[in-house]
Amino acid sequence: MRRCDELGAISDEPGKLTRTFHSPGMQRANALVGSWMQSAGLEVREDAAFNLLGRWTCSRRGAKTLLLGSHLDTVRDAGKYDGPLGVLVAIAAVQHLREAGVELPFQVEIAGFSDEEGVRYQTTYLGSRALAGTLTRADLARIEEKGVQRARRRRGEFLAYAEVHIEQGPVLENRNLAVGVVSAIAGQSRLCVEFHGRAGHAGTTPMALRHDALCGAAELALAAEKCGVLATVGQLTVAPGASNVIPGHATLTLDVRDQRDAARRAAVRVLQASAKEIARRRGLRFTWTPVQETAAVVCNRALTKVMQAAAARHEREVLLLPSGAGHDAAAISAICPVTMLFVRCKGGISHHRDESVKTADVQRAVAVLADFVQILAAQHA
Amino acid sequence: MRRCDELGAISDEPGKLTRTFHSPGMQRANALVGSWMQSAGLEVREDAAFNLLGRWTCSRRGAKTLLLGSHLDTVRDAGKYDGPLGVLVAIAAVQHLREAGVELPFQVEIAGFSDEEGVRYQTTYLGSRALAGTLTRADLARIEEKGVQRARRRRGEFLAYAEVHIEQGPVLENRNLAVGVVSAIAGQSRLCVEFHGRAGHAGTTPMALRHDALCGAAELALAAEKCGVLATVGQLTVAPGASNVIPGHATLTLDVRDQRDAARRAAVRVLQASAKEIARRRGLRFTWTPVQETAAVVCNRALTKVMQAAAARHEREVLLLPSGAGHDAAAISAICPVTMLFVRCKGGISHHRDESVKTADVQRAVAVLADFVQILAAQHA
Repeated sequence: MRRCDELGAISDEPGKLTRTFHSPGMQRANALVGSWMQSAGLEVREDAAFNLLGRWTCSRRGAKTLLLGSHLDTVRDAGKYDGPLGVLVAIAAVQHLREAGVELPFQVEIAGFSDEEGVRYQTTYLGSRALAGTLTRADLARIEEKGVQRARRRRGEFLAYAEVHIEQGPVLENRNLAVGVVSAIAGQSRLCVEFHGRAGHAGTTPMALRHDALCGAAELALAAEKCGVLATVGQLTVAPGASNVIPGHATLTLDVRDQRDAARRAAVRVLQASAKEIARRRGLRFTWTPVQETAAVVCNRALTKVMQAAAARHEREVLLLPSGAGHDAAAISAICPVTMLFVRCKGGISHHRDESVKTADVQRAVAVLADFVQILAAQHA
Repeated sequence: MRRCDELGAISDEPGKLTRTFHSPGMQRANALVGSWMQSAGLEVREDAAFNLLGRWTCSRRGAKTLLLGSHLDTVRDAGKYDGPLGVLVAIAAVQHLREAGVELPFQVEIAGFSDEEGVRYQTTYLGSRALAGTLTRADLARIEEKGVQRARRRRGEFLAYAEVHIEQGPVLENRNLAVGVVSAIAGQSRLCVEFHGRAGHAGTTPMALRHDALCGAAELALAAEKCGVLATVGQLTVAPGASNVIPGHATLTLDVRDQRDAARRAAVRVLQASAKEIARRRGLRFTWTPVQETAAVVCNRALTKVMQAAAARHEREVLLLPSGAGHDAAAISAICPVTMLFVRCKGGISHHRDESVKTADVQRAVAVLADFVQILAAQHA
């Protein structure tokens, strides 16, 4: 918890917590967390995608690697736990196992991923997808750091990936549980929509003759709210942006999520049809740019059973629950089985400075993760 | 027209024309226009509100001053004529009269006002209201340049104010007229509205539990569109402003205009009630801040007749038309009678780089303004 506080003070912006991909704040965060990894006896390095990696080497010949971790970047004006908690819990669990003299039949590597939130380039999982080798040409075209591809790891290297994360929702709190095991991660579509109308003088252009790009964007934001799945307009900018000028241009982001890929895709199609109808009716042009699409990820069944068994040692009831938010585990699922453990957070609040977790819940998560590693070790002995 | 081009190249932003109150671009614009005033034989100075003033002194004892002019600031990404044309036409008309050896029974002063558009502080007519002495404490609280009050001129100093301006609407073009005389200037209400909701994770907050400030702002923008008078949301910003975070905060500007003050005030009341209802239904807080209110201004009847007589010498039909846009004349009407001459502009387009006027129409405007001064002189001889 002290480490969460210390790390939460490292920011790109004064007065609030913001750390974005490859920023000065991220460089300082990696240095600090790297020092904690070293204290836990890990070999530390930063890969070509600026992921922080701490390795516990196993002497067994040809041993695969168990990957643990989460991300160290944040949204703007973030809380202290979304991401960092999973990295610090993994360090604590590994330190506990090493101090207990445990020997494992696999390598362990802890990853502090460099970009999960996608704030800088509006493209999530940059760090974990670089490691998984699933970045596309379109991703690379969006970013300045072309070298990130070299972070790709070799096929078959990883045994499994386990991630601890705050729930970011209200379910565990409602059920009075400290931790829960994740069944699946919702799929997600991210889009960028632009409306082009005609700027004009706010005092002389009759309402009937306007082509107001902002009003078109406003209609689409309200359509998103009613599209039947989780849909959010998080960014909206207008140009020229003067109080007495009709907006000639508006740009907005759309974030659409559901655990059912078909329902999510149907909602995106409905919204695209809405944008088309709005543009036609208002005499606007519009562009519809898919930025990212992530399919829903069902966590690996066998690995989930191991996590459930570990959780059962520390929790009266092991709840299996879905995740509405995306996680690095979704990206890593491209190269190995994944499992996740959720930790209760106050009021289900995340992406906000009021984000809060209980010390006792975090202790429980460290113990569950350490037991998860040991049960897995027993299976691979 | 060459001067319009030269002045239009002086900007605060590369690649587009933007000059805001007391900016480096405005300082260079004042220097350039001041040199043209000097070439026309005027005594040039800048007052405490950064208005550029060029004076043609009359030897008659106790003579009042005829004020001519318009503004030299612009909106963002502006056209070349909105404002500057009126200043340059006045310089050309005065130069013509001086070269013709005309002697006047009053002083003439040409003003290039420093702020009409209000881009920098969202408060229009800063320059002309400083000269008229009608700045309020609230205005002064919004601005850094506290000395502008010293630009106030003494009561009874001005005989009249005449302003030439592009129409910024399609009426003259539709009627195939080069110029027209303005009957009245619409009143205007400017407001700033903020909605405060709750930021949250776009993937885990159920739609029914959201307090999305942007969706509230979107509803208000669409309500403005249907409020029955000219109403525009020209600026809208959201925070935190990440694609995967529900906006906790949204700020927008409202610009409401009509020639009937009662209709305008009723529309503002309707929109305030809408904002209240939206906020209540969505669980948002909102603030409603009037930034500026300008009553409609009916141009002086006697002075308008003089302008009509001058126009009749150069135009087959003298159209009397209202102005939907605000002008410095509205501010100056607080201290003397005002009249305005509109010049046809292409497509009614203004506040846009496509703003365009015909050379022949501008020649006509110079001739009308020169004749206006001479007819007025004859009346005061």
